[in-house]
Amino acid sequence: MRVGVLTGGSDCPGLNAVLRAVVRKGAQVYDDEFVGFRDGWRGVLRDETVPLDITAVRGTLPRGGTILGSTRTNPLLLDDGLDRVRGTLARHRLDALIVVGGTATLGVAARLADDHGVPLVGVPKTIDNDIPLTDRTVGFDTAVGVATATIDRLHTTAESHKRVLVVEVMGRSAGWIALHAGMAGGANCILIPERPFSVEKVCEWVESRFRATYAPIVVISDSALPESGEITLRHDVTPPPGADPRARLSGVGEWLGREIERRTGKEARTTVLGYVQRGGSPSPFDRWLGTRFGLHAIDAVHDGDWGTMTALQGNRIARVRLADATSTLKTVDPAQYEEASVFFG
Amino acid sequence: MRVGVLTGGSDCPGLNAVLRAVVRKGAQVYDDEFVGFRDGWRGVLRDETVPLDITAVRGTLPRGGTILGSTRTNPLLLDDGLDRVRGTLARHRLDALIVVGGTATLGVAARLADDHGVPLVGVPKTIDNDIPLTDRTVGFDTAVGVATATIDRLHTTAESHKRVLVVEVMGRSAGWIALHAGMAGGANCILIPERPFSVEKVCEWVESRFRATYAPIVVISDSALPESGEITLRHDVTPPPGADPRARLSGVGEWLGREIERRTGKEARTTVLGYVQRGGSPSPFDRWLGTRFGLHAIDAVHDGDWGTMTALQGNRIARVRLADATSTLKTVDPAQYEEASVFFG
Amino acid sequence: MRVGVLTGGSDCPGLNAVLRAVVRKGAQVYDDEFVGFRDGWRGVLRDETVPLDITAVRGTLPRGGTILGSTRTNPLLLDDGLDRVRGTLARHRLDALIVVGGTATLGVAARLADDHGVPLVGVPKTIDNDIPLTDRTVGFDTAVGVATATIDRLHTTAESHKRVLVVEVMGRSAGWIALHAGMAGGANCILIPERPFSVEKVCEWVESRFRATYAPIVVISDSALPESGEITLRHDVTPPPGADPRARLSGVGEWLGREIERRTGKEARTTVLGYVQRGGSPSPFDRWLGTRFGLHAIDAVHDGDWGTMTALQGNRIARVRLADATSTLKTVDPAQYEEASVFFG
Amino acid sequence: MRVGVLTGGSDCPGLNAVLRAVVRKGAQVYDDEFVGFRDGWRGVLRDETVPLDITAVRGTLPRGGTILGSTRTNPLLLDDGLDRVRGTLARHRLDALIVVGGTATLGVAARLADDHGVPLVGVPKTIDNDIPLTDRTVGFDTAVGVATATIDRLHTTAESHKRVLVVEVMGRSAGWIALHAGMAGGANCILIPERPFSVEKVCEWVESRFRATYAPIVVISDSALPESGEITLRHDVTPPPGADPRARLSGVGEWLGREIERRTGKEARTTVLGYVQRGGSPSPFDRWLGTRFGLHAIDAVHDGDWGTMTALQGNRIARVRLADATSTLKTVDPAQYEEASVFFG
Repeated sequence: MRVGVLTGGSDCPGLNAVLRAVVRKGAQVYDDEFVGFRDGWRGVLRDETVPLDITAVRGTLPRGGTILGSTRTNPLLLDDGLDRVRGTLARHRLDALIVVGGTATLGVAARLADDHGVPLVGVPKTIDNDIPLTDRTVGFDTAVGVATATIDRLHTTAESHKRVLVVEVMGRSAGWIALHAGMAGGANCILIPERPFSVEKVCEWVESRFRATYAPIVVISDSALPESGEITLRHDVTPPPGADPRARLSGVGEWLGREIERRTGKEARTTVLGYVQRGGSPSPFDRWLGTRFGLHAIDAVHDGDWGTMTALQGNRIARVRLADATSTLKTVDPAQYEEASVFFG
Repeated sequence: MRVGVLTGGSDCPGLNAVLRAVVRKGAQVYDDEFVGFRDGWRGVLRDETVPLDITAVRGTLPRGGTILGSTRTNPLLLDDGLDRVRGTLARHRLDALIVVGGTATLGVAARLADDHGVPLVGVPKTIDNDIPLTDRTVGFDTAVGVATATIDRLHTTAESHKRVLVVEVMGRSAGWIALHAGMAGGANCILIPERPFSVEKVCEWVESRFRATYAPIVVISDSALPESGEITLRHDVTPPPGADPRARLSGVGEWLGREIERRTGKEARTTVLGYVQRGGSPSPFDRWLGTRFGLHAIDAVHDGDWGTMTALQGNRIARVRLADATSTLKTVDPAQYEEASVFFG
Repeated sequence: MRVGVLTGGSDCPGLNAVLRAVVRKGAQVYDDEFVGFRDGWRGVLRDETVPLDITAVRGTLPRGGTILGSTRTNPLLLDDGLDRVRGTLARHRLDALIVVGGTATLGVAARLADDHGVPLVGVPKTIDNDIPLTDRTVGFDTAVGVATATIDRLHTTAESHKRVLVVEVMGRSAGWIALHAGMAGGANCILIPERPFSVEKVCEWVESRFRATYAPIVVISDSALPESGEITLRHDVTPPPGADPRARLSGVGEWLGREIERRTGKEARTTVLGYVQRGGSPSPFDRWLGTRFGLHAIDAVHDGDWGTMTALQGNRIARVRLADATSTLKTVDPAQYEEASVFFG
Repeated sequence: MRVGVLTGGSDCPGLNAVLRAVVRKGAQVYDDEFVGFRDGWRGVLRDETVPLDITAVRGTLPRGGTILGSTRTNPLLLDDGLDRVRGTLARHRLDALIVVGGTATLGVAARLADDHGVPLVGVPKTIDNDIPLTDRTVGFDTAVGVATATIDRLHTTAESHKRVLVVEVMGRSAGWIALHAGMAGGANCILIPERPFSVEKVCEWVESRFRATYAPIVVISDSALPESGEITLRHDVTPPPGADPRARLSGVGEWLGREIERRTGKEARTTVLGYVQRGGSPSPFDRWLGTRFGLHAIDAVHDGDWGTMTALQGNRIARVRLADATSTLKTVDPAQYEEASVFFG
């Protein structure tokens, strides 16, 4: 078969593992040929391709990013988007498309498959881990690793000095990175977007922590928000079209640090991890997951199982409907957050 | 309640995360008191204890090993073992026991609970990941990380020179570490105990790899064996009583390296990872898993759910019967091994 | 002999290596006894001590921070500071003092030794590496490692997207961390306090980089400043007494990111590493250096070589005058900066 | 100018940093053109080349190995070696050669330059750090880092169990890796080739360590030897021509482990690090050192300073005579070894 492949949305570690597995199994087992599209859906719209064969994927397993490039382009926002997608597929005589992406990219894929009959399968990736029906998404474990290593390092400063340390991690709509890294790093307080926080309560934890041992570490998602009326963030205007919507909320970590200083009289320092979380060599887990997703995605193509997405369920790779996996976001379960709260303060 | 806690079997990363979570939730939420037993079941037999309270577990989350110590002692091998266990529990007026261990340690726990009514719950840990009914055991992810980092480093030597590189990893009866690290590290051949290997086939892969690109990397479990009649290992006698049974098979990596040299005429070099795989700071995944297991184990104690073990099933922590989890080993599924074989050669 | 020990200034990785070596050699070879002062000079002023013997230093080699604690207290700013220092030394019958610190802490030590006859020796530590007469200070190598690992991770985002990535690293008065991490990480532009920068020139580099390959990475010291008149930083008022003077300049990285966006029309993202750089397990180099400094410091005490500081010169540990080592700061040599500039743009 | 470049001897981390710096500065500042020779002197003898320009070195800074490949070929062992070297240089109209290597490769370079007038300069690299007149060689810091990380991990097993842990590290003729990693990792005994060891003394340390705290960690160079008459190593025959001479001594770590078991009755386990030490991403120090060496080597070429080698002396890059740097090996100074021995036992 002739198979097109694209990676869409923000880049994240483990994408190359997916591509390598798709190509190795496709070429060796099924005798497939591949066309890589540059920069996500944009490459399909513009018919810009990247060579994608066994040589191209060699040595890419430990590398972050994606050899195909990635953008947030959404073809369904254009009047002629669907036609251009179809045109490109026809021009390259493609029998199928493999779409690797987050909620937005896969949401487009779901509609193309279900409403317009485009023969495609999806693979879920995002450091945010907010896609339902799969235990984990590619990229999440690595992001948690970066954030946890940061918290580990901050503990020594917390022990030696008397400063509150705030760590702002990513998490557009779901607090999974904050929750997992906060638990793994031994944070004294974890703030997530699913649960508006009370600055007063945070300050109570800070002060009780000082009394009990040493300086506290507060982990906060960059989209967490205080209970109403308390905050004016730096970029509080509507972001320009095409900009990362995350930009809107930038600054909550520094804001919280200043609020803690103001209310408790303790010095506070904020570390903003930013893009470090989505870069660098993928963790072994993400390489294993990406590899297995890639192997199963090419199988799904050969089964003609259009409109499905690979999903980790236990240790099994399942197939779920793209439409089901993109109709909602998987946010942090309140019970899991409660579980973690025994370590607060 | 008064709760005794022990860690048995080989040490592994993430044990302290379990202990810390048990104690934090037990003390803070349930107002429990804890008695730590030194060195696994031996501490119970000898009534040797270690202080186990919030102060004792502070700062232990990122540390490998176990603050309680560990041995392979099996109380049921002693005539008076059961009585001594009961005696110690009575002496400390313990209402329950939390047993953290691998198959052997938990197997003892299952019998004590089911046959002798000892009120206990179990938590599965082992770098070997060979306990059924749980997706993963505490310690496995870290061991895979160490092995993968090693393979990553060896790739540069493989690229620059013409030598076959053999990496011997742990895996007493199951090849999970070899499989996951081999997949994550991009090994060219993975040999596991579940599947006796043909040295001839390995040499074919080695030679085809040399033709295709550069020197191959072979990952082998330390208990993998060639098809019959081909090997005489160094420690082929019965190990002394009490010794690590693993010792019996020590040397298969070096043996394979020499066989490859002899048959292909290529130089081969072996790295024996050994105990490095079970030491050091636990990965974020193992800290998260250990923490959740600890939180749920103390809940199970308060539910009086004796004879159960915490288990990861998807993202949920379930309870399974210790008897079911220890009646067999979870070995590598042939289908998963086949999946990985697309990368061989 | 009876020897007091203190660590002053900001904490940094490798301090415990110094303490451990001092105590091991002192106790085992010279039969010394030690008194640890809590929180730098403040512990001397207040006569607050911490146990410091072989048991106390056991297992501390790989740990960041300092088991003694640290503050920026300067006894010579108090009217009765000198008397209180002398009083504490007399009360504990101390024959000598070992002072581990940066320029400020060691400057106090120099005056106490030279002007007031206090029998002491110094050990240089600071992540800033700005102490003259020693090739490196304890803590610098680790901080460079943290910053370099961050830049490594950002490269994958830079490759996959079209954003300028700004990394703000520490460096109060000297740009050593920025220079070394920028060189080791392959930054496309390095901005240091010793050389006021032209935003226009930075934007030229950014644009030429985009033309040549992919998105640029800009490394900037948190005390680097643009050429006059261009900047209004967030904390531009005099910091409160006792506050970290670094606070004054906080924000230059984000400011630069916004300036680049404004002038080039490219999106920019800033990572502020902050305290992560001074925390965590010391690098092997810093453990080796700290250990050797500790061994030589206790030798200097037994030689009665008061007023000296251990210094790395080549592979040799030398002794230099504290007064000479604290009379000036070691800033980045213009020739070394020029050397690095071949990689800019 | 037209400049040939080769990397010889065993590969090690940081070689690509040298190549990248040579090419970036040569091409951008001096308008040089480069010819890369494949696999060290062999590529010169056979006239096999590799493209070496700014594109070829892009992105190689964090990568281990060498993009040129490497072998141990010595052209001066061939009757017509010198003529073939001259022929290749003439054929490519090369004005100079930059030779990156260890003692053997640079020794050839010294003779070619001094005895035969070949216009060349050298750059010292080897994980063994055994080249005189330079504080450190490229690759050493990374190898120490790998070995130290291993020792760190073994500490947790040493704490939890009762086993002696032996770590065999590389060090052909000099014990620098063992010394530095042993000091940085907190080993309880360090054995180096410069100082034949007494197994009896090692067992005394092992037993005193058990009495004092927990299980000991013994670090041993793979070429360290016991005092005469005690050992029969596995590969005790003369290695085949062309084989790594190191092979001759393979096995001392396992031998020592068994001796310790036999004499003390304690279980012992050996980890053989092997090639892991010379692979993987170079440390920030090695990238910085390799980069500076490369920048200065191309300067030396343009100064016509033939027969010299770049050398780190303090923080300065000096030039020394290749003949002086290769006439002897820099072994571990007895005083430095004594210094470390305070931590033994």
